[in-house]
Amino acid sequence: MLPLRLSILGVGLLGGSIGLAARANSIPCHITGYGHRKQTLDKALEVGAIDRACEDAGQAVTEADLVIICTPVGLFEQILRQISPHLKKGAVVTDVGSTKRSIVRLAGKLLGRGVEFVGSHPMAGSEKRSVEFAKADLFANALCILTPTAKTDPQAVEKVEEFWKSLGMRLTRMTPTQHDRYLADISHLPHAAAAALVMMQTDAALMLAGKGFLDTTRIAGGDGALWRDIFLDNRDNLKSAIRRLIRNLEGLSGLLEDDKSEKLRQWLDQSAGRRQALLQKKLSEMTPD
Amino acid sequence: MLPLRLSILGVGLLGGSIGLAARANSIPCHITGYGHRKQTLDKALEVGAIDRACEDAGQAVTEADLVIICTPVGLFEQILRQISPHLKKGAVVTDVGSTKRSIVRLAGKLLGRGVEFVGSHPMAGSEKRSVEFAKADLFANALCILTPTAKTDPQAVEKVEEFWKSLGMRLTRMTPTQHDRYLADISHLPHAAAAALVMMQTDAALMLAGKGFLDTTRIAGGDGALWRDIFLDNRDNLKSAIRRLIRNLEGLSGLLEDDKSEKLRQWLDQSAGRRQALLQKKLSEMTPD
Repeated sequence: MLPLRLSILGVGLLGGSIGLAARANSIPCHITGYGHRKQTLDKALEVGAIDRACEDAGQAVTEADLVIICTPVGLFEQILRQISPHLKKGAVVTDVGSTKRSIVRLAGKLLGRGVEFVGSHPMAGSEKRSVEFAKADLFANALCILTPTAKTDPQAVEKVEEFWKSLGMRLTRMTPTQHDRYLADISHLPHAAAAALVMMQTDAALMLAGKGFLDTTRIAGGDGALWRDIFLDNRDNLKSAIRRLIRNLEGLSGLLEDDKSEKLRQWLDQSAGRRQALLQKKLSEMTPD
Repeated sequence: MLPLRLSILGVGLLGGSIGLAARANSIPCHITGYGHRKQTLDKALEVGAIDRACEDAGQAVTEADLVIICTPVGLFEQILRQISPHLKKGAVVTDVGSTKRSIVRLAGKLLGRGVEFVGSHPMAGSEKRSVEFAKADLFANALCILTPTAKTDPQAVEKVEEFWKSLGMRLTRMTPTQHDRYLADISHLPHAAAAALVMMQTDAALMLAGKGFLDTTRIAGGDGALWRDIFLDNRDNLKSAIRRLIRNLEGLSGLLEDDKSEKLRQWLDQSAGRRQALLQKKLSEMTPD
């Protein structure tokens, strides 16, 4: 069942795009948006991402069937504490955070009986943050990971899944632990590596950077505080991913010898082949049947 | 003085684009193309990248004022040996290779008196290789690095510079040693890191890859044999660059602690800021006065 009253907490790129996508997909729900900056709320109203603006998180959720927390990961605990006393019985809360273990644990601790939490991670976005970059089709054909636990009410999971599906997303489920481990590898580590690639450059070398370098480091352009919170929240997995990347780089360095030339070529071809297969898969997903 | 007779050895993406760009910029020269595959030469003739096709490198250079070697780095020695006896007195030879120390050394050893070599590295291209992707504007506003030595005839350097400038390139000069050190950092290392980022992934994590991961690893899609030759040719600098990247990754890992939260944010913001400044610089270069 789709929500009749939706609350979006944090109307930046993701929150704003959820509102626009709900409108574009003709979901007949009333949307309340919460934000701590009036300017952002005004902009969200102006572009039609929300119907009502609220500068108090608690007040923003009193009537909501579905609440989506779209604030940075570092604010989750504060937001959960603020909304918990105001949620109505039967309300379902989800989020769009890049880590899942901590919020699932916090929600279990901080939300009252009669309220269900289902962790979500819609895999969409960009290094841009503000509602000005919000797009109605940001989620179309993108993957949304849901992380229900053994304790999560199946009906609440279905409700959240139905909502993401109505925005055009593909769905998958895994445990919060699996999610955080995979995302450390495929998302947080690439960000860390891109940032390190920028930081290790001398100014003289940086002057010679081309399109390849800019592409490789694009994700390092994101907001520092936002990524700091994600990195710290997922530090165990990220440290492990960094160690494995270092081992791979050391392995590559060891292949830089004349008598390992054939092995080096195989390693490079294998890497190019894996990426090519991934690209084909992504392209086929973007052209749904 | 622009060349009247130009020979392009290797008519792939770069060689083909040089021919197309010479035509598009109305350079009145006759262009001979050499390639070891008839199919490639036919295609280069068809798209108008060359006027004459030649399946013998020596025959392709007999009348040339300017010869541009566009074969993979690994074939440079062989090509220099093949053309050396056939070059006319006063001919100038250059190249488009991603490494410069080895070809400058080889040219000094293998080319005869009366022939000048000037190393060039036009910083343009993509992970695509074939002449089918050749574009007349591939070099427009891109940077070309020239690596003359103390022994290089200044007139030959000017001739090569004038040619690249006529295709719309910006120019800079440095020593072959400087070139290879900078390029290891800004080009070869990002390629190595992108490839290692792909190789360290599990299949399960790879299933969750988004646009960010594809961008970060785009340059790892290049041809294995081609990059093997570049990596081996520049191995000392690349090994050093890998060591410095590893030190940066270890440093980042050390910041993943609650009491280093502020330092971590500063590190991430600094990285984003350096990249942003670079992006602004690139954008301003693309809009010439």
